[in-house]
Amino acid sequence: MSTLMAIGGAINRTAPTVLQEFLRRAGGSKARIAVLPQASTQKDTGEYYRDYFGKLGCRHVSVVDFDLRAESDSPKHIRLLQRVSCIFIAGGNQSRLTVRYGGTKLEAELLSAYRRGAVIAGTSAGAAVLSKVMIASGKPGATPRLGLAQMAPGFGFTDRMIFDQHFRQRDRLGRLIYAVTTHPGLLGVGVDEDTAAIVEGDARILVEGSGAVTLVDGTSIEASDVAELKENEPVAVSRLTVHVLTRGCRYDLRKRKAILSERILEIE
Amino acid sequence: MSTLMAIGGAINRTAPTVLQEFLRRAGGSKARIAVLPQASTQKDTGEYYRDYFGKLGCRHVSVVDFDLRAESDSPKHIRLLQRVSCIFIAGGNQSRLTVRYGGTKLEAELLSAYRRGAVIAGTSAGAAVLSKVMIASGKPGATPRLGLAQMAPGFGFTDRMIFDQHFRQRDRLGRLIYAVTTHPGLLGVGVDEDTAAIVEGDARILVEGSGAVTLVDGTSIEASDVAELKENEPVAVSRLTVHVLTRGCRYDLRKRKAILSERILEIE
Repeated sequence: MSTLMAIGGAINRTAPTVLQEFLRRAGGSKARIAVLPQASTQKDTGEYYRDYFGKLGCRHVSVVDFDLRAESDSPKHIRLLQRVSCIFIAGGNQSRLTVRYGGTKLEAELLSAYRRGAVIAGTSAGAAVLSKVMIASGKPGATPRLGLAQMAPGFGFTDRMIFDQHFRQRDRLGRLIYAVTTHPGLLGVGVDEDTAAIVEGDARILVEGSGAVTLVDGTSIEASDVAELKENEPVAVSRLTVHVLTRGCRYDLRKRKAILSERILEIE
Repeated sequence: MSTLMAIGGAINRTAPTVLQEFLRRAGGSKARIAVLPQASTQKDTGEYYRDYFGKLGCRHVSVVDFDLRAESDSPKHIRLLQRVSCIFIAGGNQSRLTVRYGGTKLEAELLSAYRRGAVIAGTSAGAAVLSKVMIASGKPGATPRLGLAQMAPGFGFTDRMIFDQHFRQRDRLGRLIYAVTTHPGLLGVGVDEDTAAIVEGDARILVEGSGAVTLVDGTSIEASDVAELKENEPVAVSRLTVHVLTRGCRYDLRKRKAILSERILEIE
């Protein structure tokens, strides 16, 4: 089964349950990891994660190490991605990823790895880039306004949802509602820091980590005026469905239904 | 018809459409206004609004001017409230209002004025205090957590909704979702700055001003774990219904249905 893990950034380094779950799903100590560091402007991001995953017991950690788009399609990078069991996309600025990978053979290899069953995890910007329509940038605020978020094409592992991250910490429900209102066929997935939304194919979403995952379902929308507004005008939209899920909760993507964790009465 | 106006604070002073709508509903230049300044710690708040409403053309503006709870029930204050067409509750800290008015004859007079048809408007803390269950204080954040908001009894003009204010500006959707999850029979009404939610009895809510009113309907909730958590743990809740309304939109309280403004296709 194909698995995506959208991590909201700021992973707890002393109790990295989110990364442990990633490794567990990718083969444990036998995991073969490729790290994509390009979202970050810091030179040592790749090395940092190589060391970090090493300390968690992984022996096979490689960094897809290039900076210029022209260098992306080297046979070395392609061969690397053909042998991995999982890919980890570091944080930074999601546009730094898409300008380097977008439309390249290497981007196609990322998708091939996913289809073949590699676990794909991204944190912060690396989470945003997972979807076909990604939030490229935006402003904070609880109320959606026209232009609050700018959308751009992401890597496109899924075309059914759109991710946002640092969710609680940076006040992003307004921009997620805005993104879903402009793309009502998508499920908005807002991920708190130190938290992961684990997307198991087309079947379901699980939650791991210390925070929450907020789901904004646009398919129940009755009406919106988002097509009629000028820049920065507030958006009106009726009947969004919102779920807030924590560790142990799951969301059935086919039934579009949330099931809370087992300690809670389940309603079927 | 009884009317409440919950104003989100920070009224635009050069284009006070929100206050003009308040005065229009209360009799225009013939409005008889009582100003309640006690939420504010500033000594001149009452005088400020007397001058301000005067500049908007009102000749009959009185300030309910006392500071000690023991002074609240003076015959002068009671008589004043018996003759007003509207009451304006200034901003500050809502608990400063409830500790002075709660349980007094003067509080009962406020409710009598409302039942008799006086328009009741409150801005910021003055909006929070309008409901029977009020948000007394809380923390910002998009994700609801246990203890995110502290509830206390407000003036109780309505027992069907709960108001929050400075909504977009202070990132309060998390605490409104928390408040509604703990009181699922209530409609959460989050009001942006320079914006009013106008509640016409049990019939409907209208929106005036430059921002949005976010409605969180808890009656559609399927399950939540809010009764099982420890302080500061994130709350899980499934199937909240959210509407974001702007000027010209309305919400039918009986059908629990939002109708967007007329420029938008209405779905009946």
